[in-house]
Amino acid sequence: MSRVVKLAVIPGDGIGPEVVAEAEKVLDAVTASSGVTFDKTRFSLGAARFLETGDTLTDDDLQAIAAHDAILLGAVGGTPGDPRLKDANIERGLLLKLRFTLDHYVNLRPSKLFAGAPGPLANPGAIDFVVVREGTEGPYVGNGGAIRKGTPQEVANETSVNTAFGVERVVRYAFDLAERRGKKVTLVHKTNVLVHAGAIWQRVVNEVAAEHPQVTVDYLHVDAATIFLVTDPARFDVIVTDNLFGDILTDLAGAVTGGIGLAASGNINPDGAFPSMFEPVHGSAPDIAGQQKADPTAAILSVALLLDHLGLGAEAARVSAAVESDIASRTGARSTAEIGSAITALL
Amino acid sequence: MSRVVKLAVIPGDGIGPEVVAEAEKVLDAVTASSGVTFDKTRFSLGAARFLETGDTLTDDDLQAIAAHDAILLGAVGGTPGDPRLKDANIERGLLLKLRFTLDHYVNLRPSKLFAGAPGPLANPGAIDFVVVREGTEGPYVGNGGAIRKGTPQEVANETSVNTAFGVERVVRYAFDLAERRGKKVTLVHKTNVLVHAGAIWQRVVNEVAAEHPQVTVDYLHVDAATIFLVTDPARFDVIVTDNLFGDILTDLAGAVTGGIGLAASGNINPDGAFPSMFEPVHGSAPDIAGQQKADPTAAILSVALLLDHLGLGAEAARVSAAVESDIASRTGARSTAEIGSAITALL
Ligand SMILES: CC(C)[C@H](C(=O)O)[C@@H](O)C(=O)O
Ligand SMILES: CC(C)[C@H](C(=O)O)[C@@H](O)C(=O)O
Repeated sequence: MSRVVKLAVIPGDGIGPEVVAEAEKVLDAVTASSGVTFDKTRFSLGAARFLETGDTLTDDDLQAIAAHDAILLGAVGGTPGDPRLKDANIERGLLLKLRFTLDHYVNLRPSKLFAGAPGPLANPGAIDFVVVREGTEGPYVGNGGAIRKGTPQEVANETSVNTAFGVERVVRYAFDLAERRGKKVTLVHKTNVLVHAGAIWQRVVNEVAAEHPQVTVDYLHVDAATIFLVTDPARFDVIVTDNLFGDILTDLAGAVTGGIGLAASGNINPDGAFPSMFEPVHGSAPDIAGQQKADPTAAILSVALLLDHLGLGAEAARVSAAVESDIASRTGARSTAEIGSAITALL
Repeated sequence: MSRVVKLAVIPGDGIGPEVVAEAEKVLDAVTASSGVTFDKTRFSLGAARFLETGDTLTDDDLQAIAAHDAILLGAVGGTPGDPRLKDANIERGLLLKLRFTLDHYVNLRPSKLFAGAPGPLANPGAIDFVVVREGTEGPYVGNGGAIRKGTPQEVANETSVNTAFGVERVVRYAFDLAERRGKKVTLVHKTNVLVHAGAIWQRVVNEVAAEHPQVTVDYLHVDAATIFLVTDPARFDVIVTDNLFGDILTDLAGAVTGGIGLAASGNINPDGAFPSMFEPVHGSAPDIAGQQKADPTAAILSVALLLDHLGLGAEAARVSAAVESDIASRTGARSTAEIGSAITALL
């Protein structure tokens, strides 16, 4: 009996199409004899599409994408400062709209320092942690506005919204993950300043922790967490944090584990009500687009997260292992396609 | 004619009194023959005082402190998890109350990698930049609340408030500083997500930049900024950013320039309507308090900022130079007092 997975593919802008092509190469190869067929639909979305049609993400797009089992996304976003994009916000209108509408409340971002990966730290130690970033609340809700805009009397507000419902489900996910890993959860927040948002996170963590006596619980203010990410990143196992702090910590974590060219992510709806979406943490990098200069490894590791999510753990492990040995044997510069082919050959 | 400076000294909790003692040693020595007398008043404030009297910062305290020309603060905050402090928020009730009431709209945090300073980066390069962190607005305003607190239906909000008035004055300070330094200003924000707060910052920076044609202007999202802080910190000259992003970036910057034991800060009211306050970036570290283990260098460099602020540039330079040569010749472990005395001897 063969299983068919309906996969929506959004190559996007800039280096997106190039890295997605390699990710697909790996996906096709690793599932060739798995009995699982990927039925792919390509969606042409992003800055390029906006410039052509004026649409960012229509209701029809959303409905069509939501009818899939999973989503693979490259990167979206036009050239910074492009005047034609001045009033478009591709990030909010496309990427965040997908995350919010498809209820991707777990933004899963593993950080692992592979042997041989370049990194800025003199003594990085053994880095292997996962950031569980909340994906549907916090300062990202778009709950803001301005009065007297453009004048010396302008006041611009942004409201972070945090619900017990939203915090609890992601905290539960983090504790379940820690049970299967190193049995440690670190909450990162700024409870001493953001006292209301901080209190709800701390309370929920305390409550869920009581159900997980095997899991050690730790707390760090976000500022202190950035210090430990560069002085003792090996101390982390599972970090659970809000949408904005998670955004900041995972870029820094990507940098300390060999660069954002290696950092993968999954925007996950664990309930399965909506398709989950897998994407490299990096952006569209228009400055190097079309030049075969981008590292497709982050996109390929996102395929590993996708396979894991679909229950194809063995295939996911083969992809990770192939990436690991490719990184260990890297020497000179290679093109995007050469890296993709090398990893495919190592499967 | 001798000048008298009325200095409020707040040693605070934990290691605060130890590092302030050394900072005073240096201050006294460097100003001994300057013709300036420091008339000091000590204020016993912090967690210890709260536990004794139940007061964090009374109106009388505030009035008395405000009558001074400047403030030197060690660190405040009790032992984390102390049940007697559960409902006290020393950070908001004391430190932030001082910054907000005394209108410290510039939180000035220099980051310089001194020769010989330990640091986590393999190839740090020449790090020498200043973060100009806004100090009276943004997510720090305390404009939040919760409904259905403690229940599964809780909703907790925090509102970031940003005014053209508040943003413009700190942006002007940053550009003026850049004119006297490397002529480069980097705005750090998250304009693609926090669109309203981001827009006011970007607009004001554009407007002020137009008056400073010699200054190069750069923009980074806060997540990307953390990457550059560990991969290419030498690219920065003056960073201007909001209260929360500035908090995060300056701890990370402290870490990459040899640790938070070296990071100084000034909470400045440039208009002179209120006394400015100088303090190490580090906290009260109750775990090592009273053991002479803390590095007083951050407090001593805060004295240099204080002297600069008072127009005593030559004395400030002597303090910085003494710290620089002390760091260059560090070998084994020394006590807090030994470091303070060594720096004093080098003045
Ligand atoms: C592009 C942007 C909206 C996005 C975010 O802030 O979440 C990106 O930085 C990320 O981390 O995926
Ligand atoms: C103690 C805390 C309120 C404070 C802040 O967040 O500003 C501290 O982290 C700092 O950077 O001075």
